[in-house]
Amino acid sequence: MFSIFDSQMMLRAIELAKLGIYTTAPNPNVGCVITQGDDITGEGFHFRAGEPHAEVHALHAAGDKAEGATAYVTLEPCSHYGRTPPCADALIAAGVSRVVCAMVDPNPKVAGRGIQRMRDAGIQVDVGLMQAQAEALNPGFIKVMKTGLPFVQLKLASSLDGRTALANGQSKWITGDEARADVQVFRAQAGAILSTSQTVLDDNPSLNVRWEQLPAAVKAEYSQDNLRQPIRVILDTHRKVAKEAHLFSLDGEVIVVTASQTDSESETAKVLTVAKEAGQLDLNNTMRALAANGINHIWVEAGATLAGSLLKAGLVDELIIYQAPKLMGNDSRGLVNLQGMTCMSQAPAFELTDVTRIGNDVRLRMQKPQPE
Amino acid sequence: MFSIFDSQMMLRAIELAKLGIYTTAPNPNVGCVITQGDDITGEGFHFRAGEPHAEVHALHAAGDKAEGATAYVTLEPCSHYGRTPPCADALIAAGVSRVVCAMVDPNPKVAGRGIQRMRDAGIQVDVGLMQAQAEALNPGFIKVMKTGLPFVQLKLASSLDGRTALANGQSKWITGDEARADVQVFRAQAGAILSTSQTVLDDNPSLNVRWEQLPAAVKAEYSQDNLRQPIRVILDTHRKVAKEAHLFSLDGEVIVVTASQTDSESETAKVLTVAKEAGQLDLNNTMRALAANGINHIWVEAGATLAGSLLKAGLVDELIIYQAPKLMGNDSRGLVNLQGMTCMSQAPAFELTDVTRIGNDVRLRMQKPQPE
Repeated sequence: MFSIFDSQMMLRAIELAKLGIYTTAPNPNVGCVITQGDDITGEGFHFRAGEPHAEVHALHAAGDKAEGATAYVTLEPCSHYGRTPPCADALIAAGVSRVVCAMVDPNPKVAGRGIQRMRDAGIQVDVGLMQAQAEALNPGFIKVMKTGLPFVQLKLASSLDGRTALANGQSKWITGDEARADVQVFRAQAGAILSTSQTVLDDNPSLNVRWEQLPAAVKAEYSQDNLRQPIRVILDTHRKVAKEAHLFSLDGEVIVVTASQTDSESETAKVLTVAKEAGQLDLNNTMRALAANGINHIWVEAGATLAGSLLKAGLVDELIIYQAPKLMGNDSRGLVNLQGMTCMSQAPAFELTDVTRIGNDVRLRMQKPQPE
Repeated sequence: MFSIFDSQMMLRAIELAKLGIYTTAPNPNVGCVITQGDDITGEGFHFRAGEPHAEVHALHAAGDKAEGATAYVTLEPCSHYGRTPPCADALIAAGVSRVVCAMVDPNPKVAGRGIQRMRDAGIQVDVGLMQAQAEALNPGFIKVMKTGLPFVQLKLASSLDGRTALANGQSKWITGDEARADVQVFRAQAGAILSTSQTVLDDNPSLNVRWEQLPAAVKAEYSQDNLRQPIRVILDTHRKVAKEAHLFSLDGEVIVVTASQTDSESETAKVLTVAKEAGQLDLNNTMRALAANGINHIWVEAGATLAGSLLKAGLVDELIIYQAPKLMGNDSRGLVNLQGMTCMSQAPAFELTDVTRIGNDVRLRMQKPQPE
């Protein structure tokens, strides 16, 4: 069904899709290539929510040469009216004769409708080329569509022996400048950066993307004019964070998640109220509420307590740990609170996907094991 | 002074030297190549203490073609009568006209004497080609010669958050089979494997090299007939280990280091008595005593207490940590005891030299930072 040329074109469409990784949230990253014979006549990618989809850009670039063409798209073209008209209709109207999709729309309510619409119009539609690579473009969008839960990355940083501060609290700096710049790259790709009232009270952090701290290679492809600030989410069960906290004064949206029924307003943030579970915010419901508010992909930077609670709840999809080549000893503060395990098989285990040296530190990336 | 051909020949001599890494202890690894014009006429390496040196093997292989030849040696040829006659004399007798040495003998008492002897005999001797690579062949031999202290590798294994056992003591298995096979490769290269009475009492370990557990690639170059068992060293301050402990029944030598003046004999081991320092064995003196007993290179496998004490004493030259992609939480047992730090600058820091994935685990290698 697919030729080598098809694969080359889909790979190009995936590369195009990646040009939007800093800007499209909460929309998915999508790329599109249009070909006539052996020639590329149009290319496009989705840049920002509310702006045209990849297919529209590519059709525009192809102009007359879209007629009889093949279109390669990393995601099934949409069939519904959202902020823009349906792309399936645009491909039909342009006279495209074949459409190759890497994957169907992950939303079970719409999956296949765009494909059907195009087939009904006489277009040959082939589905499934480089599906795994296309799925990797949009882990958050896909997870929310399939489960109602966002894709959660938990960031941790410690010494080699898993310590985050000396007994007296001293912790600056365990990891180096390069590791902190690398964190900015992950923040910039996330839909939201999540932390807790405790972290805000302790450190009064910004929790934003500081463009000037991004690595030069990222700055070269992501201009400061296009800077998108992820939503900052603060879990503040008892509304302890004052409106004077630094993060409220910065660009971008803030969501406060609270269990307080009587204190559900804020001048400086959107407030979501979620029920408690054993005295804590129910994290499953918190995540569902955030997804319902358009957050697909969450980057968590918090302390040992939230880290442990998210791990126990099975809500962590990817773990990213920065380790400094230092030892801090057993009286220093630990990385995650996970009480009460009596058997090694209870320890949250991950699959290592990447090990990279970042400056003088090491970054390990791990994903939640997939069920067999 | 050195041509590209010279470098190629020295690289070959270094490769030859590495063929002895499992067998030469406590002698250094040395390789030798003899050339006539562009041709290699003899090669050799040191295989085992008491057997001929690299130069003797290479001269034997070259035969008549040693006359007028160039000899490449990774270490200054010896000038003294040990278990074998001086190699400098053998090179002179064979009529070699040029000798290239990667490095001078690190023993300050003999350094340069072999070189001088050959120069006095009219041989052109050039020194210093690929010195760093040649030094890396013999970190233990060089360190003992220069400082009287052995080269110490500390092996640690933990979860991602630096934990070695659950609160109830359960620890089997944190790391996987491949990591444990990798440990066997390091053990096989060490002059000694060092542990403590506590570890022996807790685990009754073998602390030896199990040939069948070595990776296939190592078995292919290291036949079981040549298996050398490193000396096992047990720090047993108060002579708590009974002679029935498993390790005494296995092939190879055992040294027990004790502070007990009244209990300095053993049927099953050599006993070294070392003074106490603040109620503990003085680790500096322990290391000196081990070096004086022919141990250049020590592989340490012990618990959090000895690990912390060695780190505090600055006795760890290389740290090798195996990490499993699991989290065990803050009530689990920690990796190193390092009490009383009040400032991050007191945390023992290392330079990362290698990060490698071993099965589903990660191995980090780090060296003690060199003084500026």
